[in-house]
Amino acid sequence: MKDAGRVPADLVDNGFYGQDIISVSQFDRDKLDYIYRVAHEMRVLVERFGSADLLQGKILANLFYEPSTRTSSSFMAAMLRLGGQIIPINNVQYSSVTKGESLPDTVRTLESYADIIVLRHPEVGSAATAAHYASKPVINAGDGVGEHPTQALLDQFTILEELGRVDDLKIVMVGDLRYGRTVHSLTKLLVNYGVEFAFVSPEILRMPDDVLDVVRQSGHAYTELDDVHNVIGDADVLYVTRVQKERFTDLAQYDRVRDHYIIDEELMALAKPEMCVMHPLPRVNEISYAVDDDPRAAYFRQMRNGMYIRMALLASVLGKA
Amino acid sequence: MKDAGRVPADLVDNGFYGQDIISVSQFDRDKLDYIYRVAHEMRVLVERFGSADLLQGKILANLFYEPSTRTSSSFMAAMLRLGGQIIPINNVQYSSVTKGESLPDTVRTLESYADIIVLRHPEVGSAATAAHYASKPVINAGDGVGEHPTQALLDQFTILEELGRVDDLKIVMVGDLRYGRTVHSLTKLLVNYGVEFAFVSPEILRMPDDVLDVVRQSGHAYTELDDVHNVIGDADVLYVTRVQKERFTDLAQYDRVRDHYIIDEELMALAKPEMCVMHPLPRVNEISYAVDDDPRAAYFRQMRNGMYIRMALLASVLGKA
Amino acid sequence: MKDAGRVPADLVDNGFYGQDIISVSQFDRDKLDYIYRVAHEMRVLVERFGSADLLQGKILANLFYEPSTRTSSSFMAAMLRLGGQIIPINNVQYSSVTKGESLPDTVRTLESYADIIVLRHPEVGSAATAAHYASKPVINAGDGVGEHPTQALLDQFTILEELGRVDDLKIVMVGDLRYGRTVHSLTKLLVNYGVEFAFVSPEILRMPDDVLDVVRQSGHAYTELDDVHNVIGDADVLYVTRVQKERFTDLAQYDRVRDHYIIDEELMALAKPEMCVMHPLPRVNEISYAVDDDPRAAYFRQMRNGMYIRMALLASVLGKA
Repeated sequence: MKDAGRVPADLVDNGFYGQDIISVSQFDRDKLDYIYRVAHEMRVLVERFGSADLLQGKILANLFYEPSTRTSSSFMAAMLRLGGQIIPINNVQYSSVTKGESLPDTVRTLESYADIIVLRHPEVGSAATAAHYASKPVINAGDGVGEHPTQALLDQFTILEELGRVDDLKIVMVGDLRYGRTVHSLTKLLVNYGVEFAFVSPEILRMPDDVLDVVRQSGHAYTELDDVHNVIGDADVLYVTRVQKERFTDLAQYDRVRDHYIIDEELMALAKPEMCVMHPLPRVNEISYAVDDDPRAAYFRQMRNGMYIRMALLASVLGKA
Repeated sequence: MKDAGRVPADLVDNGFYGQDIISVSQFDRDKLDYIYRVAHEMRVLVERFGSADLLQGKILANLFYEPSTRTSSSFMAAMLRLGGQIIPINNVQYSSVTKGESLPDTVRTLESYADIIVLRHPEVGSAATAAHYASKPVINAGDGVGEHPTQALLDQFTILEELGRVDDLKIVMVGDLRYGRTVHSLTKLLVNYGVEFAFVSPEILRMPDDVLDVVRQSGHAYTELDDVHNVIGDADVLYVTRVQKERFTDLAQYDRVRDHYIIDEELMALAKPEMCVMHPLPRVNEISYAVDDDPRAAYFRQMRNGMYIRMALLASVLGKA
Repeated sequence: MKDAGRVPADLVDNGFYGQDIISVSQFDRDKLDYIYRVAHEMRVLVERFGSADLLQGKILANLFYEPSTRTSSSFMAAMLRLGGQIIPINNVQYSSVTKGESLPDTVRTLESYADIIVLRHPEVGSAATAAHYASKPVINAGDGVGEHPTQALLDQFTILEELGRVDDLKIVMVGDLRYGRTVHSLTKLLVNYGVEFAFVSPEILRMPDDVLDVVRQSGHAYTELDDVHNVIGDADVLYVTRVQKERFTDLAQYDRVRDHYIIDEELMALAKPEMCVMHPLPRVNEISYAVDDDPRAAYFRQMRNGMYIRMALLASVLGKA
């Protein structure tokens, strides 16, 4: 076994070693608590030392079938800060894949070079397929409209880091709740905790029934609203996503509702002094730039938490030789 | 001289130090035996320790003028597992090269940053040109329809690792033997050993005369066949390449012969219990997926051997300070 | 504070620690002398040891909105040779940026993963904008027709390394002086020293007035000429840029003057035995390949000096914990 450096000994028996990370449904409350504890330790480690050597000699194949600067860079930084190395594989569309190679063959090739594969792929289920064929661990970095589990984990971890707890919070999700993958996954994680939901969106962009079913079946209260102004005063967490003009067939309708979903200083003046504003980024104009300097604006810290969560996962999956 | 770590002392006087690797014609039997011995030691090293620090502080410029996920990733992994670092340079077509810069100028620029250059380029002879102008070592990672020496080395090394020897084997090459660069190079390497060849292809995709000349002049027996079923029972090595529909002007002819070159479980039932199936990948349908679980299916181990061969070459070329 | 390894102790109080590097106007003579001294030490370090561990655990985000193999590779090599790591971000145009993300958001995201950002961007002022929003240091690697300060520094450092001084030199700049960003920046740096200028160009590609103003106001002598043959005998430095056919509306005029700006063996026979020929590269035909073997041809050493300058800047900006 390799020297585990400055990382806690309980990595060894964490239940993650050698596992794939494909879906948020893999995580029960114990596993969430574990990963968030390790992620917090990663934060302390980075803030004190910058990096560690836990994964020295390990190689991550960062396989991105579609571009995602944010997620790709975050995984690369996570691996490098743990002392590991990366093989960046972008623009695969121009590559052997275009000659007709199947995903299983690509994955089996890459695992012959690397110790772990991070996969971003436009097709739902691709990460599970890759994991099925691979004998090395696979981490899902987004499979189309399917899952993006590390995003959901970093979102929930941000709530914990910002507010010190996840229980007894009012979670307000705003914007496009129908097509937004991040709000679906985060909601499914949050039902492990004692939260209350408010879903704020235009009628045509309501939270889908299958997600609402999860909320109901887990016995959580929720409300559905049209305007964020009606709930902002109660929010502990305000999770913002963009309402895209393209979703509307009736543009007059879009013009009527658009301002209900813009977060600006005026709205923030109505919010509690201790709460946090989150956004998966990229944003366009749904959060005013003036809000960036508000101490409650957590979205850039949220990005940084993404690195800590990915460090925690990489360390937990690869941490034992 | 840098500390050579866990690598054998004979690296110092191996005849490769500071050399370019451009063509299989550079390798006589002694040099092949040497590289295969080091590659095997690299395999042991990776299986035991994951990586080494032999090339710590060295930088490889991985210069790919055309995409090749497999070869590119394999060289990157090889360098990283030896403790070196990489500068990945892909999509050069969009870069300073499009402003009209010559290959010699690009190579002379990159060697001012890096310690070794791996070059993939679509033009025959480009690697030799680059090596001529560079004062640092250049490794040819494929120059169009020219050579791809590390592929040929990894192919032969795979035979050695799978069967324990290269002599006294029946090598059956199947598929497109006319345009397949890999089968040409491998054949030229194999004539250094005591093998017998069977070349199985459609009439229009026969092995070219210049390759057959090499076989004849070196005194090796060979046969040419139309159907792999007629020879599978004798094969020690079955090297498969794809018969592309596009090669046929008469599609009726393609439909008549296509099944002669498909490797499936039925065919494998006719093969010896100790033999190996190889393929340079990517494959489409010329080897059935059901064959992947057959212990004789060596093509994914073959990929991994590519990393060991490239580690052996990098270590031998750069291993002495 | 991290162990600074083999790097001089005066890094700590160098005036660069934690600073952005955006413009040549940040550099007075003291700062230039400092950076050139460190760059020379970096050269000695690389020639003796290959690399150091000064920036171990640090991560550079190499953010290139437009391709530039040369500059990008040079920064990557500089970081790696100092023991740091890199996150290469190329082809950003295909990435989250195309979804409409602003440069400030991208920069604030990347600084949450990395310790320093190197930015190449097609728009003037982009580096200053990025630096304004970032809390981590930003280095300008070229912002359109704006600045490319590390190019100017490496150019002047090359003069120092080639000739042992910058004072009392005759600097001859040849070619497209109107649109060439490198000659403008270099001129602005050189006025810190006691040099004399000769600007050789076609009438329509003369040095712009704002640059000439800087020369005049700093009290330096200069001449403007049409033909390099008339001044080559006096040149200590011959800085060559390309005269592009596309700049001419009257092609007959281009044909008349083109040979006045070609550097070949015949011209070099008229030059002093101790002088140096420089070029920012890539070149097309403005310097004959035959000149490459002339010991006065400094342009490939100039490339290598680019790595030393970037090492000096990275070490100075990040060198203290």
